[in-house]
Amino acid sequence: MINKFSADLLVTNGTVVTMDGEDSVVENGAVAVKGEAIVAVGREDELTAFKASKIIDADGGIIMPGLINSHTHAAMTIFRGLADDLPLMTWLNDHIFPAEAGLTPEKVYDGALLACAEMILSGTTCFCDMYLFEDNVAQAAKMAGMRAVVGEVLFDFPSPNYGSLEKGFAYTEMLVEKYRNDPLINIAVEPHSPYLCAPGLLQKASLLAQKNDLLLVIHVSETKSEISEINEKYGLTPVGFLASLGVLSSNLLACHCVHLTEDDIALLKKHDVKVAHNPESNMKLASGIAPVPELLKQGICVGIGTDGCASNNNLDLFHEMSMAAKLGKVFTHDPAVMDAKSVLRMATIGGARALGLSGITGSLETGKKADIIILDTHKPHLTPIYSPVSHLVYAARGSDVTTSVINGKLIMEDRKLLSFDIAKAAGKVMEIAKDICKKRAEACKS
Amino acid sequence: MINKFSADLLVTNGTVVTMDGEDSVVENGAVAVKGEAIVAVGREDELTAFKASKIIDADGGIIMPGLINSHTHAAMTIFRGLADDLPLMTWLNDHIFPAEAGLTPEKVYDGALLACAEMILSGTTCFCDMYLFEDNVAQAAKMAGMRAVVGEVLFDFPSPNYGSLEKGFAYTEMLVEKYRNDPLINIAVEPHSPYLCAPGLLQKASLLAQKNDLLLVIHVSETKSEISEINEKYGLTPVGFLASLGVLSSNLLACHCVHLTEDDIALLKKHDVKVAHNPESNMKLASGIAPVPELLKQGICVGIGTDGCASNNNLDLFHEMSMAAKLGKVFTHDPAVMDAKSVLRMATIGGARALGLSGITGSLETGKKADIIILDTHKPHLTPIYSPVSHLVYAARGSDVTTSVINGKLIMEDRKLLSFDIAKAAGKVMEIAKDICKKRAEACKS
Repeated sequence: MINKFSADLLVTNGTVVTMDGEDSVVENGAVAVKGEAIVAVGREDELTAFKASKIIDADGGIIMPGLINSHTHAAMTIFRGLADDLPLMTWLNDHIFPAEAGLTPEKVYDGALLACAEMILSGTTCFCDMYLFEDNVAQAAKMAGMRAVVGEVLFDFPSPNYGSLEKGFAYTEMLVEKYRNDPLINIAVEPHSPYLCAPGLLQKASLLAQKNDLLLVIHVSETKSEISEINEKYGLTPVGFLASLGVLSSNLLACHCVHLTEDDIALLKKHDVKVAHNPESNMKLASGIAPVPELLKQGICVGIGTDGCASNNNLDLFHEMSMAAKLGKVFTHDPAVMDAKSVLRMATIGGARALGLSGITGSLETGKKADIIILDTHKPHLTPIYSPVSHLVYAARGSDVTTSVINGKLIMEDRKLLSFDIAKAAGKVMEIAKDICKKRAEACKS
Repeated sequence: MINKFSADLLVTNGTVVTMDGEDSVVENGAVAVKGEAIVAVGREDELTAFKASKIIDADGGIIMPGLINSHTHAAMTIFRGLADDLPLMTWLNDHIFPAEAGLTPEKVYDGALLACAEMILSGTTCFCDMYLFEDNVAQAAKMAGMRAVVGEVLFDFPSPNYGSLEKGFAYTEMLVEKYRNDPLINIAVEPHSPYLCAPGLLQKASLLAQKNDLLLVIHVSETKSEISEINEKYGLTPVGFLASLGVLSSNLLACHCVHLTEDDIALLKKHDVKVAHNPESNMKLASGIAPVPELLKQGICVGIGTDGCASNNNLDLFHEMSMAAKLGKVFTHDPAVMDAKSVLRMATIGGARALGLSGITGSLETGKKADIIILDTHKPHLTPIYSPVSHLVYAARGSDVTTSVINGKLIMEDRKLLSFDIAKAAGKVMEIAKDICKKRAEACKS
């Protein structure tokens, strides 16, 4: 006989910010977990029947869904702070591209593992990645115990990983097979951008995604120079160009979307395209400000991402939420847009929808996988509390997260990472950095 | 016989980011402190002669000057998250002003003390405050062991503190006398703004400041409605209006300066007026974006402030630096402006200059008062390190600060605040918040 009240893990004594359809906030709340899944969410006095082998006391803090980083290049932690404050093309051509030429599968694994540590320690439980050697990123995520959507970046020139484009597609198909039933890893097809991918590549990628019901991820309309280039080549905007190829669809995640026309926005809406907003990277590279308040007004699904560490330079989604909310307000001259609840949705359930994972994560609801974080609110900067949601967006920091449960498994407790040795992972990345510095001593003086 | 190598405190084993005139960065560095003052800064192997009763091992982290918050309203911690995402006038008239009507000296003390805890825990050692009951803010700063510039806000309507304006000036003069030789507290004269202060008030305040060699602090050109109002009243910009009254001078700290004309900037430069930049508050209230890159280009001294907690909603200057740098870049479409070094200067030596305190704080130099913080860099989000200065602006968080020395006294060690009981201070503010909630129950639902 199965006891319907049995659980493996009970998180108690906190304010539960569910991010469910009604944005319910439950004071004196608790969450019960069995195996990988949430089996109950409610007031603590409603969940007393649940007996669990492990009980985590949230100590009056906030219990909420883990954050979702909708767009990053995790392994770029190894280039964090290597080159800042430079014109975009100098940054790319003189610093990032040369450094990336020396990448190996091992270095990508090391960089991605360090990124996982940073993400878990700042409340992220799921990320969507685009880079080279993505099999190794998937392995790093699995080692860390994180949920991830990974896809090998595809473009027209030879890749340090797969060489010719044909092999790039074969590599992607290999990933699809390898991770078909993985509990944590989902594979995406990831052509880089309209300016680095010919029409044939984009259409082939789109077909591959549709055939396998995969997410299709692409950078779109990030910079003004991209807009000019695509206009010169095709007489269209990047979004218009993708539309002309039949690539716009509800399984497309368009990252950045900084420079959009009204027609572009109408196209995104019509095809239910998802958007990943990366405010800090767009600001730091001076790319521009994405019209997110307008996208939200139109009902377009928007997630939030950090982009890579070379253009941010951190992976803290609490920081990113604060930035997104404040940037949206000043950009539209309207303090009422990008309210805390809308921005918190972008980093949780909105991100899950953007990645095609809203059936399993992004909110605390019975039946979903247990991706849960706890924040300690006994801190001066979170005192007093009139509204937990306001604090999560405007006052909290990643370092307030004490506990992380991913897919039902306890991954961090009392800020101690349980899945792997951070110092060892950090040591490897420091070795890689030393090597980079040796090769370009002049860049390493502060 | 006096041993010239005796010290009370030796901070060792860190990278010293001095922020001195040459922005020197000293690897394997150390700082020696005797009494209130720094007696040596250099490589550890140059300071071996110093013997100290207390040695703090920075464990390979960053040793740097404490950050300076150039503009805040510390006691407003009690309203943190009370009302967000609202049009400016609704926010002020329906939420902040009614809540402020219930202020007492005790509440201001409690709110300011909590602010001090938050500031120390996030690396700030000195702040410039404008609010009501500033004697109580000064007392809170002294209890916390923080350096502060405080000034009672002056305006044309009756104040909950001093009532009539005459008494406001008398209160300010009382503060000047009371704190004349205080090692931590400096008094400023603080008329609120051109729109809440008549010409007579502004001129009288300016004279009082000049007579006593005090800083004069004022909000200027924060919103477009202020620009319209001053233009209607006087046919001038707010800066032009202050110039016409003879109020612009090198002891004036102009806070916000969001909406400036070319002529305004020329006036600020001509009179060596100092500016406090508050990017997060200006963004959150949708006030606009201050032309800080242009101010810096003109050689105008700019500090950085958080503004009050009701419009931010945190006092973390690391967060504020990241925001300032990124906002400046996207605003000017130039990723090279507001480079990490310039922004770090704004939060340290620039802030000290803005407050008239650059002779005693803002950098680690022999002879200055010892206002020192240490950051733990053994963290994933600060790994690897190519440039400490880049990390301080783009990757570090207030929670990375482990140790704080203010005026030679150890105020925080291993993130434990030594000067007062945080829990008790937080408890008092929670009681105040409960009381506010009782009076306006509807505002307290999240």
